[in-house]
Amino acid sequence: MTHASHLLDLPHHDGSALHVPEGTPAVGDTVPVRLRVPQASGVRDVWLRSVRDGEPRLTPARHDGGTAGEDYYVADVVVHNPVTPYRFLLDAPGGYRWLDGRGVHDRDVPDAGSFRLTTHAPAPAWLADGPVYQIFPDRFARSGEASSRPVPDWAVPAAWDDEPAGDGVLAGTQLYGGDLDGIVAHLDHLADLGVGTVYLTPVFPGRSNHRYDASTFDRVDPLLGGDAAYARLARAVHARGMRLMGDITTNHTGEGHEWFARALADPSAPEHEMYVWAPPGGPDVATAPDGTGYAAWLGFGSLPKLDWSAPETWRRMVTGDGAPITRYLREPFGLDGWRVDVANMTGRWGSADRAHAVARELRAAVVGARPDGALVAEHFHDATADLQGDGWHANMNYTGFTRPAWSWLAVDGSPAGAHGLPVGAVRRPGHAMVATMREFDSAVPWTVTARQWNLLGSHDTPRLRTVVGSAEAAEVAATLLFTYPGTPVVFAGDEVGATGDNGEHARTTMAWDQGARGGGPRWDTATLDVYRRLSAVRRGSSALRGGGMRWAVVADDAVVFLRESTTERVLVVLARGPWEGAVLPHHLLAPGASPERLYGGLGLRVTTDGIVVPGDGPGVAVHRLA
Amino acid sequence: MTHASHLLDLPHHDGSALHVPEGTPAVGDTVPVRLRVPQASGVRDVWLRSVRDGEPRLTPARHDGGTAGEDYYVADVVVHNPVTPYRFLLDAPGGYRWLDGRGVHDRDVPDAGSFRLTTHAPAPAWLADGPVYQIFPDRFARSGEASSRPVPDWAVPAAWDDEPAGDGVLAGTQLYGGDLDGIVAHLDHLADLGVGTVYLTPVFPGRSNHRYDASTFDRVDPLLGGDAAYARLARAVHARGMRLMGDITTNHTGEGHEWFARALADPSAPEHEMYVWAPPGGPDVATAPDGTGYAAWLGFGSLPKLDWSAPETWRRMVTGDGAPITRYLREPFGLDGWRVDVANMTGRWGSADRAHAVARELRAAVVGARPDGALVAEHFHDATADLQGDGWHANMNYTGFTRPAWSWLAVDGSPAGAHGLPVGAVRRPGHAMVATMREFDSAVPWTVTARQWNLLGSHDTPRLRTVVGSAEAAEVAATLLFTYPGTPVVFAGDEVGATGDNGEHARTTMAWDQGARGGGPRWDTATLDVYRRLSAVRRGSSALRGGGMRWAVVADDAVVFLRESTTERVLVVLARGPWEGAVLPHHLLAPGASPERLYGGLGLRVTTDGIVVPGDGPGVAVHRLA
Repeated sequence: MTHASHLLDLPHHDGSALHVPEGTPAVGDTVPVRLRVPQASGVRDVWLRSVRDGEPRLTPARHDGGTAGEDYYVADVVVHNPVTPYRFLLDAPGGYRWLDGRGVHDRDVPDAGSFRLTTHAPAPAWLADGPVYQIFPDRFARSGEASSRPVPDWAVPAAWDDEPAGDGVLAGTQLYGGDLDGIVAHLDHLADLGVGTVYLTPVFPGRSNHRYDASTFDRVDPLLGGDAAYARLARAVHARGMRLMGDITTNHTGEGHEWFARALADPSAPEHEMYVWAPPGGPDVATAPDGTGYAAWLGFGSLPKLDWSAPETWRRMVTGDGAPITRYLREPFGLDGWRVDVANMTGRWGSADRAHAVARELRAAVVGARPDGALVAEHFHDATADLQGDGWHANMNYTGFTRPAWSWLAVDGSPAGAHGLPVGAVRRPGHAMVATMREFDSAVPWTVTARQWNLLGSHDTPRLRTVVGSAEAAEVAATLLFTYPGTPVVFAGDEVGATGDNGEHARTTMAWDQGARGGGPRWDTATLDVYRRLSAVRRGSSALRGGGMRWAVVADDAVVFLRESTTERVLVVLARGPWEGAVLPHHLLAPGASPERLYGGLGLRVTTDGIVVPGDGPGVAVHRLA
Repeated sequence: MTHASHLLDLPHHDGSALHVPEGTPAVGDTVPVRLRVPQASGVRDVWLRSVRDGEPRLTPARHDGGTAGEDYYVADVVVHNPVTPYRFLLDAPGGYRWLDGRGVHDRDVPDAGSFRLTTHAPAPAWLADGPVYQIFPDRFARSGEASSRPVPDWAVPAAWDDEPAGDGVLAGTQLYGGDLDGIVAHLDHLADLGVGTVYLTPVFPGRSNHRYDASTFDRVDPLLGGDAAYARLARAVHARGMRLMGDITTNHTGEGHEWFARALADPSAPEHEMYVWAPPGGPDVATAPDGTGYAAWLGFGSLPKLDWSAPETWRRMVTGDGAPITRYLREPFGLDGWRVDVANMTGRWGSADRAHAVARELRAAVVGARPDGALVAEHFHDATADLQGDGWHANMNYTGFTRPAWSWLAVDGSPAGAHGLPVGAVRRPGHAMVATMREFDSAVPWTVTARQWNLLGSHDTPRLRTVVGSAEAAEVAATLLFTYPGTPVVFAGDEVGATGDNGEHARTTMAWDQGARGGGPRWDTATLDVYRRLSAVRRGSSALRGGGMRWAVVADDAVVFLRESTTERVLVVLARGPWEGAVLPHHLLAPGASPERLYGGLGLRVTTDGIVVPGDGPGVAVHRLA
């Protein structure tokens, strides 16, 4: 048991509107940034340190008013480079300190954690407006026509209530027969959840139920209803004011892709240069039946790797007539953007690293086709170096959100283990979760943090419920998801308590009949209500949708933070169990006001000591303070 | 007062020969790396996590023997990219941990602190062989001819014993008249210190005593004796088996440079494209008398900035006939390499960032001219992002060594203040020093760490003695300098206890007459003896010259670490004051052996408990254990 850290006495800055003017600055601008200095901090003077052309500059900050309890300091950042790192030098008794995105340091630190002003436009605001709802098409819902379609040669038909295989050949070949019109038929469920964006994993034909092994990008899989059904889905989604995002593989195609077939058959074919050829036996090299070696995703021969040094790859994927990146953004589909599969490996092979160029040009193509288009990377690991510029708008935030959240809420002995690692599940104290979150968050611009796709699980992970082991813990996790900066992403089924030990096993179908009957073992009505209410709370709160992030208390078994916009302050309390509680200063409350409960069973009391957060748990509390 | 951290129970890895095979790997190689796991650590299984093409891979490590007290594990790194980040996953009771260059973490961490295998050749081995001795030519020694030279129009003659001006015009114009033949006459002093490399700040003509404002790169300043004297110095240095390094400005020239004069006078001159022109009033823009705006170092008009997007800049500086980068590496000078001034800003301006390209091409030019040439950057701040590849061999390690060392040993109220920051001097506990050192070290490949130019001060900083306030503290600092991984760099005068409040004030002359008389207020014979003996100890120890680095104990007032080569283990104890002491395990000693004192007044005792490090201080101890 470690002692709780009380952080509200420390100066605070983040990239939100309370601290940095809204809008994207341009080179040549001067941007005043605001630091909030609690009177209890002891700080007696403040400077801004910003890096220009590789050289740090110190600028005195000026005192600029404040509120009860804290002083404001303002300093000017000169925007001369596309990205400007900055942090604050604090003079205080005991020696100077630095404030950066990781917190306050009583020693010198590298620039990795510095705040960043960027001239690159952020993702469109709609991305973070409502939750993203992720659908794995084969498992969501069948339309009336689904049962009449022929079963392809690679598939093994499954009954809708069958448990998905967690490994072996079946994991990729079990076909449940969900389709696009099935989704159209259930959009009420999404609307009920307040969904803002529908994200579908791939819809192109392949030789698997997940379709990440596309055999063409020229048409939508007839098994899903084909182009016409995709267009119907897009119209229906847009008619409800929601957005629709697709999923595309830029790192590889399927082995059965028409391009790869021609490339392999004929070295003089234009498609030949589109793939990475390499001597058999090398790392991640697969061997074709004719003995030809080719780079493949993790060496799996079914997924030959695209070569982004080849002009033909650019033409076929991005710039040419009918290239998928832009084609599906136009009518009759009108996708609002892409989630890019294996973005972390795309364009990377051996001595060549074109990953940033690919990300930049993909964004340019997407935004060129539709100015409010979005481009989100799948980078399962440390994506921070790939999120600095004008490439991916955001990332599926497994490292900065999912894993640390799981690590705090995981139940010992969960069959989910430590996903992706050959070790057991681990339950860590709050400070471990928060340190990891802050470290990853601080390494990217706030404009990225504010749009990151935060998730509690996906088609590539165990189910949240299996990781945390109970509906109570899942509620704590869901509250974190809907109150944390960024875009909440819900994998279809999490909202009704789906379970699963790993990515494949977690690709469960939706038990619509149980929903219709008012719930059952695969349809947890109480959890559905948690998601529905949290989504509504987030929709009604400017602070939760776009406010800053200020950690207030970090204990082993509870964390407390503030989300603050220019007009609202929301306090979030998450407890995985009983803890020591905390007392927060009165000045966080609007004068004369009482905390307004927005969500959760835990209460707050206001006494002469301050705002008392009792040590009850497990449970959550979301209160509007001002 | 914080508790001491005892780190010897934790698994250890670094890039030294005990853990990674010597030599530079090539793409296609498989490199076995070794982890040392103390039996006391509780670790029960180990995996290697390495990143290939942007995707982490886990490989089981195999148990591979060990020694008393610790097991060895070995795992294979597949070299597929030019730089391969890797770290270790440790399974242990209480949950998995990560080991990277910062230490052991009980939570998930980004890749920034990962170890790195690089296919880029390191700096030549000679660079770290002996200490580098830095000479500011105007202040080291006058030859017999010095007094007969005419005083240039910009200069104010100073007497040899005058105190240097710390600010104002005089700081740049006081001319003491040291020259190159003066250095030749005092090489005995350097040999006595065991100097391996003589590094001279600029010798090109300028309009200042520091000569960072070159008016030409085509000849050596006649005030210093001209080309002939530089050639004599090179011959004399090389005759003693020492190396000679120069100092060149790649970010800027002097306003009085012949190139800038032509560039300014005639926009159609070939030199015009060599400078960065910008509207007056912009950041770091100076204005010429004719109203022309040009980028300048920190806006100082005397130092116009070179434009590395211009082919003419490349021709004049690097690739052309007589370009200085290669010219001075050839006879009759035969420099062994360059220290590059303001490397952090070179090639960086606004939206253009050619810094890595410049570093890479400068290295190629240097190594092309002489295969064992060295290229060291001046990057005063966070250089880690610039030290990842085939550019600068090493950096002047102010952030990873100087500042943290100062912060631990600084005396409160020192007139040196917190150099470069508008706040007071600060004395921090040992863990602050070590955390900063580890954080900066871990962000670059070990092959860079092992060559970094560590320094306790330079012509750009206050003097060490002024920072730490006493000969006793300076001895602790010097012991750290000579026992830390990398290249010890001594600014001429530090070895005789020179003082100075800031960079200009610290450019003191050498009081040779006092040396001849056996010491005096500006010639601290006892400190000279400290440097001489530490240099000899380092020369005689393979572990100190090239061994690994393992922190053993970190306390407020003492730090203890091990340097280990394949044949030797050296224990270093540094105490700034009395502390609680520590007991280290017996197995660090060779069987049947006793600690062999190499340097320092503190003792060790071997008892049945272990190797007892008493809590005496201030003081140091350097012992060979095995």
